Amino acid sequence: MEKLSIVKIGGNIIEDVSALQAFLNLFSKLEGKKILVHGGGKRATHIASKLGVESKMVNGRRITDAETLEVITMVYGGLVNKNIVAQLQALKIDAVGLTGADANSITSDKRPVKDVDFGFVGDVKSVAYHSVNKLIEAGFTPVFCAITHDGNGQLLNTNADTITSQIAVGMSNLYETSIYYCFELNGVLEDINDKNSVIKHIDAKRYEELLEQGIIADGMLPKLENCFDALHNGVASINMGNTSMLTRENNNFTTITL
Amino acid sequence: MEKLSIVKIGGNIIEDVSALQAFLNLFSKLEGKKILVHGGGKRATHIASKLGVESKMVNGRRITDAETLEVITMVYGGLVNKNIVAQLQALKIDAVGLTGADANSITSDKRPVKDVDFGFVGDVKSVAYHSVNKLIEAGFTPVFCAITHDGNGQLLNTNADTITSQIAVGMSNLYETSIYYCFELNGVLEDINDKNSVIKHIDAKRYEELLEQGIIADGMLPKLENCFDALHNGVASINMGNTSMLTRENNNFTTITL
Repeated sequence: MEKLSIVKIGGNIIEDVSALQAFLNLFSKLEGKKILVHGGGKRATHIASKLGVESKMVNGRRITDAETLEVITMVYGGLVNKNIVAQLQALKIDAVGLTGADANSITSDKRPVKDVDFGFVGDVKSVAYHSVNKLIEAGFTPVFCAITHDGNGQLLNTNADTITSQIAVGMSNLYETSIYYCFELNGVLEDINDKNSVIKHIDAKRYEELLEQGIIADGMLPKLENCFDALHNGVASINMGNTSMLTRENNNFTTITL
Repeated sequence: MEKLSIVKIGGNIIEDVSALQAFLNLFSKLEGKKILVHGGGKRATHIASKLGVESKMVNGRRITDAETLEVITMVYGGLVNKNIVAQLQALKIDAVGLTGADANSITSDKRPVKDVDFGFVGDVKSVAYHSVNKLIEAGFTPVFCAITHDGNGQLLNTNADTITSQIAVGMSNLYETSIYYCFELNGVLEDINDKNSVIKHIDAKRYEELLEQGIIADGMLPKLENCFDALHNGVASINMGNTSMLTRENNNFTTITL
């Protein structure tokens, strides 16, 4: 099976012009077929605030009302996505910027209202991996922002990590798929206070041990749960670390396999 | 040669939710391969004003400074484009929303500064019609907003009518191409005060006569000049009228050929 890399960057890189440029340089040199997924960062919050759209939180979780969805569509789907595409073109990567509505690539269900009405938030239902692959086969590099659609004309806000793992699961029908989650840390850390204590390899057995030892906790718990979900659904490997893990000169990051 | 239709809609349709829905219905039923190009309308001006970005005019012409370009990228490339794509998907049209940076489809030169510095405005240099055709051949319907790029990472604001005619000229290398310019009028009018005085057919000879008689003047002059430029560069026919010309039940619109 041919290899496919799916790289996800978050707000910390998108908000820093020089960090983004440095990352896109690395991404452009990454060999083989590839997909980029980007989050949005605080840009949307800033612009929402300027537009007088209030951030609504319930139990510490953000609510996507109609106005917030408009801002997200403008900022993630327009400003951030199209500038990344233009910069990749300058690096000779033939990028095409997408939401889940484009090419009908990612369909989601509006999250049902239970205790909380999250508003226009979508939980991924299906990835049209054959459609995404048509773009890849035509020589394009898809660049996804964290927006999906319900198939009935409604755009929906969706978590970028989830989009990444769901695309990876879908593409695993056609490729040996690896995810690269770029984040602030060098990897999953043995000691949260020592940034150099990177655990280089985690498999299912080691994961159980780390859970028992309480080393994986807090924000890292759901991330790793999602990783193992993706691995159980066909993804070959998942890497977590800072952007330099794309260079292969740096091997100080975490690789997760079954 | 296979036929290709390129349809352009302007602000009057985009700003009216029900007019846009009605148009997209007609567009979805248009047979054969097709491309949609949309302008932006006053939405960008409203949002710019809310964000405190002033519209700068010199000699009655709008200047696209860096902040204005950001708003245009958000509104045209994000909000308007992605909502059109989502609505087309609901109508079973497999749309992909694009700027000229996506698929490197439309490259432009930043307009040189002479008497006026127009800012981040691009004049179309080339259309990568083979790239656009890859999308069409894969079964997608391209939906372009009026943004291009310079190939060096810079997005540029470009007139939607010009983008339409330049795409049509490029695609004429591969298809028998027709343009449909949807606008407020029923077509080119013999008497500007009589909306039913549509001139149904204009060829090069009739165009000269209409010019001599002073019937084509003001805003219609540059539009028709652009039309004949496109026809001289390979476009088969150009139609101007309201959106109902897409139905073929209404034949009360203007068709322009050489």
